[in-house]
Amino acid sequence: MSLSSAAPPVKHPPLVVLTTDFGLADSYVGTVKAVILGICPSARLLDLTHGVPAHDVLSGCLALEAAAPYVPPGAFHLAVVDPGVGGSRAALAVRTAREVFVAPDNGLLSFLPPEQVLEVRRIENPDLLARPVSPTFHGRDVFAPTVAHLAAGLDFSLVGPSVGSIRRLPIPEARTTDEGTAGEVLAFDGFGNAITSIRAGRLAGRPRAARVGAREIPFAATYADLSRGQALCLVGSGGRVEIAVREGSARERLHLARGTEVLLLEGPP
Amino acid sequence: MSLSSAAPPVKHPPLVVLTTDFGLADSYVGTVKAVILGICPSARLLDLTHGVPAHDVLSGCLALEAAAPYVPPGAFHLAVVDPGVGGSRAALAVRTAREVFVAPDNGLLSFLPPEQVLEVRRIENPDLLARPVSPTFHGRDVFAPTVAHLAAGLDFSLVGPSVGSIRRLPIPEARTTDEGTAGEVLAFDGFGNAITSIRAGRLAGRPRAARVGAREIPFAATYADLSRGQALCLVGSGGRVEIAVREGSARERLHLARGTEVLLLEGPP
Amino acid sequence: MSLSSAAPPVKHPPLVVLTTDFGLADSYVGTVKAVILGICPSARLLDLTHGVPAHDVLSGCLALEAAAPYVPPGAFHLAVVDPGVGGSRAALAVRTAREVFVAPDNGLLSFLPPEQVLEVRRIENPDLLARPVSPTFHGRDVFAPTVAHLAAGLDFSLVGPSVGSIRRLPIPEARTTDEGTAGEVLAFDGFGNAITSIRAGRLAGRPRAARVGAREIPFAATYADLSRGQALCLVGSGGRVEIAVREGSARERLHLARGTEVLLLEGPP
Repeated sequence: MSLSSAAPPVKHPPLVVLTTDFGLADSYVGTVKAVILGICPSARLLDLTHGVPAHDVLSGCLALEAAAPYVPPGAFHLAVVDPGVGGSRAALAVRTAREVFVAPDNGLLSFLPPEQVLEVRRIENPDLLARPVSPTFHGRDVFAPTVAHLAAGLDFSLVGPSVGSIRRLPIPEARTTDEGTAGEVLAFDGFGNAITSIRAGRLAGRPRAARVGAREIPFAATYADLSRGQALCLVGSGGRVEIAVREGSARERLHLARGTEVLLLEGPP
Repeated sequence: MSLSSAAPPVKHPPLVVLTTDFGLADSYVGTVKAVILGICPSARLLDLTHGVPAHDVLSGCLALEAAAPYVPPGAFHLAVVDPGVGGSRAALAVRTAREVFVAPDNGLLSFLPPEQVLEVRRIENPDLLARPVSPTFHGRDVFAPTVAHLAAGLDFSLVGPSVGSIRRLPIPEARTTDEGTAGEVLAFDGFGNAITSIRAGRLAGRPRAARVGAREIPFAATYADLSRGQALCLVGSGGRVEIAVREGSARERLHLARGTEVLLLEGPP
Repeated sequence: MSLSSAAPPVKHPPLVVLTTDFGLADSYVGTVKAVILGICPSARLLDLTHGVPAHDVLSGCLALEAAAPYVPPGAFHLAVVDPGVGGSRAALAVRTAREVFVAPDNGLLSFLPPEQVLEVRRIENPDLLARPVSPTFHGRDVFAPTVAHLAAGLDFSLVGPSVGSIRRLPIPEARTTDEGTAGEVLAFDGFGNAITSIRAGRLAGRPRAARVGAREIPFAATYADLSRGQALCLVGSGGRVEIAVREGSARERLHLARGTEVLLLEGPP
């Protein structure tokens, strides 16, 4: 059986995708969307998340790494985690073969492999900016109008001057040691699952366990393999090894923090 | 005056309705929506809630019981509260005269009266599933593509093999006693209002009060009948008797928990 | 370069904008949207926020004051922060030259200058109301159907009888003193930034600092001017002077509360 259709492709309204640390307690996200719809009324809006921990650029980067590949091609992303708003960091528009991003140049887009970045421009065209620009809310006054004009068809080259590259965070990568694959905790999701620097693609076979401090945590395929409250390590849905506690918070129960070392033990004990 | 229109009915894009315990701190909900829009770009997306308490199938069931009747007919629901993800529970598509649900077979759809369930199928058609399926994120890899293909017009019979029935939770029902109608607290909403097992339809007349432990809580029509901080019981908007505190949390102030007994006193004192 | 287009204006589907204190933990917001889509299936839905502190009409008013000007003209607003639901306060529809609001008559729309209010009507047309109306959920049973019918084209005059004016909160305004501009904290955003009664338009020049209790807090253009954890006062994106702590909560760090006095020191020390 095939699910594909013989009908000719329909042109759909542009998809604008939002990822921020603005939270949902305030009207900040709503205001950004209002600005977008004022400029590009046909836009479909998709929230990846607004729950990135405040000012935490690395967590925002990992959220995008995990979710952006699932966004349909051709989307326009607004990504704003921007502790330096109003300072000297540039505001960028970045084009890949698959999508466009507008974001502060602070490492938030570090997940993009350099070879996928086709074009980078500083957002400097004054016609794209609110007058005046609030020094504390570039999401509303810089990024929202830019992404909306791009979604509405603005030629990418009109955003502003071309830039050679984007800033990248020094995201730790796992390394192979005599004992196994050594990595560390990079971030947590809202359930307290710890996301590590060990990518699934690095694993030769199925590991036996993870050593975290003095504790050995068994490797499992999924939560259902363990009983409630038990710790496990597993390949998370974002493609990285995670430390979890079934129906609980690994962060709290195992006293994990960003930087906690995780040693993945492969082979027989 | 009539608000009805003489114009012929317009065919609207499919409505896909989401109810999960994924929370909004992470990009999980956004990823599910991204997958849906990739398959069914015309879908209108409606969040019932993503704030079901984590892993709490009964609370998810009650949220659907209260909200689903207000969703326009013809909608496609994705409902995922799934502590057993990756285990042996089936993934189902369920068809009623009014709507379609995709959900794990764990009791989440217990609110559907058996006579309204017209067709149940296991989601097993491999063309509907991501390759590979993450053992921890069936929302993204099983339920999202299935609901999207159904919203895009997939024939229901192509989902997978037919199943006789769905799993049902043993949801407590109220009972009549010499003293009044006896029930219990089933769940709480985000304001701390306690939702009980006593359905409004059970009430003969207007009750006098609810006895909870040693306390008698007056019955009122609405919050405005009492002063701030006072406890009341009332028929909640979801059609069940609720225990509330005006502008406060009944859960905290009255030390309520799931299972706390509630005796509704009818007639004169 | 011009970003304007020579194409004739396209008629876009109605935009329905939601601002409530319902939170996102429950299905209340989803139910309101379901009712709206049942009546006006073509509506585009935009959440300004559902995170107004529960029952806090002033905070809801300030959220609307800051965000509503960014909503495209022609929008239909549902605004519900309604501690008196089910009591005697009226339910209103309010028309300005720019937009329509449905809201309880409790001061939530106090931010609208009286001269901008063109028409006010009580929502009393029974064809607009659910049967029966839940005494605790007018968002679903009164405001949602009314805003949806208006968005779908209902003549404004059919909502109900005309009313002379709306209720207004006594929102404190700043005053000029010998020492500087004196105001007070009105509300907080979700980051703990304090929003004051001092409007940016009041400032003659750039202030030097704010005195809060015994403390002098420097005035800055933006967060990036100070180091992490430092307190600052600045003109917030909503057009009011705010007290903030860089990457921290001013509310907690500076022990601020609604009503805390803020004296803006202008001129040289």
